[in-house]
Amino acid sequence: MEDIGKAMVFKGIKSPFSLEEFQFPQLKSGEVLVKNTYSTVCTSDLHTFYGRRHSCTNSVLGHEVIGEIVDLPQNGVSDYQGNSLKIGDKVTWTVFAFDPLSENTLKGFPQKSEGLYKYGHEEINEEYQLNGGFSTHTHLRKGTAIFRLPFNLTLKEAAPINCSHATIAGAIRMAGDISGKNLLVSGVGMLGLSACAQAKFLGAKQVWAQDINSEKLNSSKEFGADQTFLFSENEIESSSLEIGGMDIVIETSGSPEAIEKCIKLLGIGGTIILVGSVFSQRDLAINGEVLVRKILTIKGLHNYIPEDLATAIEFVSTAKNRFPFEKLVGEEFPLEELEKAFELGQEGKHIRVGVKP
Amino acid sequence: MEDIGKAMVFKGIKSPFSLEEFQFPQLKSGEVLVKNTYSTVCTSDLHTFYGRRHSCTNSVLGHEVIGEIVDLPQNGVSDYQGNSLKIGDKVTWTVFAFDPLSENTLKGFPQKSEGLYKYGHEEINEEYQLNGGFSTHTHLRKGTAIFRLPFNLTLKEAAPINCSHATIAGAIRMAGDISGKNLLVSGVGMLGLSACAQAKFLGAKQVWAQDINSEKLNSSKEFGADQTFLFSENEIESSSLEIGGMDIVIETSGSPEAIEKCIKLLGIGGTIILVGSVFSQRDLAINGEVLVRKILTIKGLHNYIPEDLATAIEFVSTAKNRFPFEKLVGEEFPLEELEKAFELGQEGKHIRVGVKP
Repeated sequence: MEDIGKAMVFKGIKSPFSLEEFQFPQLKSGEVLVKNTYSTVCTSDLHTFYGRRHSCTNSVLGHEVIGEIVDLPQNGVSDYQGNSLKIGDKVTWTVFAFDPLSENTLKGFPQKSEGLYKYGHEEINEEYQLNGGFSTHTHLRKGTAIFRLPFNLTLKEAAPINCSHATIAGAIRMAGDISGKNLLVSGVGMLGLSACAQAKFLGAKQVWAQDINSEKLNSSKEFGADQTFLFSENEIESSSLEIGGMDIVIETSGSPEAIEKCIKLLGIGGTIILVGSVFSQRDLAINGEVLVRKILTIKGLHNYIPEDLATAIEFVSTAKNRFPFEKLVGEEFPLEELEKAFELGQEGKHIRVGVKP
Repeated sequence: MEDIGKAMVFKGIKSPFSLEEFQFPQLKSGEVLVKNTYSTVCTSDLHTFYGRRHSCTNSVLGHEVIGEIVDLPQNGVSDYQGNSLKIGDKVTWTVFAFDPLSENTLKGFPQKSEGLYKYGHEEINEEYQLNGGFSTHTHLRKGTAIFRLPFNLTLKEAAPINCSHATIAGAIRMAGDISGKNLLVSGVGMLGLSACAQAKFLGAKQVWAQDINSEKLNSSKEFGADQTFLFSENEIESSSLEIGGMDIVIETSGSPEAIEKCIKLLGIGGTIILVGSVFSQRDLAINGEVLVRKILTIKGLHNYIPEDLATAIEFVSTAKNRFPFEKLVGEEFPLEELEKAFELGQEGKHIRVGVKP
């Protein structure tokens, strides 16, 4: 076995990535070394690289990533279901490592665990270097929930599961039982398309999609959207009234204008789940009396819990012949051409751009 | 049996109530005639009478009311648990009659049923005259959830159950499991005091109360509040940070400033239930990114479902020796002196003023 991994190191906003070599780690208890087999460029990677959100340097970006186990510590490591992992296992993992005994974990929010470690977001230090997806390997820390991938999944299908699909699985968990409900997906990028597909798969009565982009709305139809609405037009208001208002909205755009509009579309007892509001924005203007008289619920969700990743894996594996997940990854580049992958991602033509180490 | 009931009829904002006589109704299937034994003046009655909210005339105000069954239709009527009601049964009932098959009822929101009828809020017409609490009798319509009162409850304890206590039982149901949680009650009028008591009763770890009025805060201590905070002071912010933020807030004041402050006090995964926002007010300014990154939930609740009334009856009956519910009703007046009851209610010295027909 070689004992050197390579990573494209992020040095700062719009700075060229630097291909650097790192010695493999001596694994401590609970740690795993994975050979990355595929990664995809998430919108938050683009936000970081193009300076729309702060991230530390030097670091290895990329967290939508899958791989194959190449090293384990002597006493072994179990996957999240409690089965022993083996060299050669094909796996995905939570985008974060958490402390199972931390107060927030015990409250049900491991993604907000004290001492949280997020892959693709942390500074390289002496101990942890191979800590992101745009790299030949990932050094998984203790407290990472690891899942074996079903054999029927292709690389392109599997890579985005541990970010977008899992986050949406969490949003749907928080929305409660959606079968027979009228559900609106606001914003149909990667998160929104996954929301359309998961909602349809789980038996929502109507899945509607709203976006500012008519091309994206067209793709949403392939992912389960029954009706689509351009944000700039207002016919959704009367259409929604006709069916008693929306029961559930999954809001992925983060746009305050979109969120305010979606809240108005909710019917009695409706729920909106916010997952897109992860950047700085103006405050929302929300009327308290409307929330009370219509018995509305607004929930925010950031990241997800390990069980959501399990749900997402199961979903993509089961529904892969129903929705064209492969098509979400438009083009792919070798690791060394990561800048090209980012440039293409930034153009916005593809939902995802792939990176193959 | 006499066949005439008397009601103090509401004729308009600040107009003297008019004592009028009404023939008893011929009961239709599912209807019940109750002799009112006690009622209390709810804040919303005061809002109506003093013109702070619109209500129709002529009507009979009052919905926090209990009574004794004096007439039933030939084929009988069952209480909500399915037991046959009998003449002489002491009962309370939901503040509304609903259609069990309406779409909103089937969604879990009977209080938003199509064709909803709200006692104390509806215009007198040929068919329904004795339709409020400030009256010798109430003509209960089909679709009212009726509950027998436990024998250990006094009139003063029992009358406010079907409004304040039941609404708070609903708020706590919506907040989820509160045992071991840090809970803040914002606004400690009748709703807030009930919230303190129910939260303490259900095993909340800390029950905090916040209000603009220090006397009310003092009473909250008798109803289970562990710590109290004047709204004008900011020590609650540091105190809350020390315990990781509030897990749950029950907001009863409806004040936008209070709601915004309470949202800031929520810890990771926290939930705020709005029950007080039942009057016109400015929009709330809420940051979407904070909702997402802290995984917060905001829920509105208006009225309650029949099961909440069952919970509230059980609560007051079980906890009556622990909390001084009787003290909430400061003074009482005969029905004919309803104006005096309203004047005293408006002064705000007592949480509730009683009316004894």
